[in-house]
Amino acid sequence: MSAKTGMGTLYGASLGPGNPGLITRQVWDLLQGGERRWAYPVRRSGAPSHALGIAERAGLVTPEGAMPLIFPMTHDTEILTRYWLRAGQHVLSELEQGRDVVFLVEGDASTYSTFGHLARTVRGLNPEIVIETLAGVPSHHAAAAALNFPLTDTDDTLALVPASYGIDWLDRVLGDFDTLVLLKVKPLLDELIDWLEGRGLLDHALFMEKAGTPEERIERQVSRLRGQKVNYLSLLLVRNPLRQRGAVQRGCRKKTSDS
Amino acid sequence: MSAKTGMGTLYGASLGPGNPGLITRQVWDLLQGGERRWAYPVRRSGAPSHALGIAERAGLVTPEGAMPLIFPMTHDTEILTRYWLRAGQHVLSELEQGRDVVFLVEGDASTYSTFGHLARTVRGLNPEIVIETLAGVPSHHAAAAALNFPLTDTDDTLALVPASYGIDWLDRVLGDFDTLVLLKVKPLLDELIDWLEGRGLLDHALFMEKAGTPEERIERQVSRLRGQKVNYLSLLLVRNPLRQRGAVQRGCRKKTSDS
Repeated sequence: MSAKTGMGTLYGASLGPGNPGLITRQVWDLLQGGERRWAYPVRRSGAPSHALGIAERAGLVTPEGAMPLIFPMTHDTEILTRYWLRAGQHVLSELEQGRDVVFLVEGDASTYSTFGHLARTVRGLNPEIVIETLAGVPSHHAAAAALNFPLTDTDDTLALVPASYGIDWLDRVLGDFDTLVLLKVKPLLDELIDWLEGRGLLDHALFMEKAGTPEERIERQVSRLRGQKVNYLSLLLVRNPLRQRGAVQRGCRKKTSDS
Repeated sequence: MSAKTGMGTLYGASLGPGNPGLITRQVWDLLQGGERRWAYPVRRSGAPSHALGIAERAGLVTPEGAMPLIFPMTHDTEILTRYWLRAGQHVLSELEQGRDVVFLVEGDASTYSTFGHLARTVRGLNPEIVIETLAGVPSHHAAAAALNFPLTDTDDTLALVPASYGIDWLDRVLGDFDTLVLLKVKPLLDELIDWLEGRGLLDHALFMEKAGTPEERIERQVSRLRGQKVNYLSLLLVRNPLRQRGAVQRGCRKKTSDS
């Protein structure tokens, strides 16, 4: 509770992608004791929550009164706005009674997370609410670690991209990046494999499904995935050894001393 | 120790950017007990180690025999290779005696980390060594959380870029990205501020120095930084609200149903 306002604080508690060992110490501490209200996202009423599942696998005891908040899987802004508002009001009523609310987040709360919408909505309804985002391990960093795949070295550039932007988009930015992290590759997987092959990148790509969860699956020979069905939570890490490096202005050197 | 080879395992233990609360539970557990050899990077002999400093601030007791490994701040590949080899040999002699070595990493071990070089060198010297990378919270995700700045929403694209590539590079990729994370902004800060202003992005940029450390500093009015000296460990988070979104192939929809 905020001493200044008498209202509860809204926490975005990043749990990492699924392995309970990836929970940070500060989030772990926040989830002890049971005096804070938990909230967690579900896709529809009664559906299981990935985020809550991580907390359960970590051996944490869900306190009474934990609130499922519905965030449907749709791109319809009107429907989404309605559900965000409902979730925000639900959370706000707890906060205004002086109770802290901890929203459980799969992965990192700043990275493709519903927490951003919840926080924005709550702040819109009551600008005095204190909001604290607690960072976590993003799924693509967990994937990189599991694969011993360095995402970036010294002066490297990295693009994080939902593969849904398609091959033309990827082909356009490829020349400027050392590493591509392609998310949600499921609907385009065969096209992506063809593109990687055409660009000579197939040996520099690694596939991972459900990184950091008990169902984690690695495929180092990406071409084997042709025609396969993969999970929605799947990604490709691609190293681009052919990237053209322009002049780099290193450290505090003068611009004219580019090497 | 690996039961198969009788040799020690090399761990890359990500500690997060500095706040001991951002250490994950699995790294925390790995650093208990003192039976594993610690190793940590320093820039030169006798220099302090940021990574070791995080462990100390967390209240962990550095076990006897902890090994500083020198990774000099230079771009000279010949010098670097010599130091990587020396560090690798040093670590390998411990591993070959059956002792586990935990290399302490500031931030995340896959993200601009010396661990990649150490792991590659050790594997080059002895391909049988088991290497385990333990993921952590990257500094730019800690910065985003501290600023309540969502890095990416639903279909967003993100570019992670050392600012040393310069303004032309940034200007070229800007149109394709919703979020830019600009690292090592120190040498180019005034030019970056001018560029952000010219592109109408100054109100969408946030500055952070030494994210996640006790000396963390936030500046929400980036224009105030003109002419100032900032730390080497500083970054800009930039939201690009003007990004032109092309056709997105969402979820499992057909390509022709782009919206």
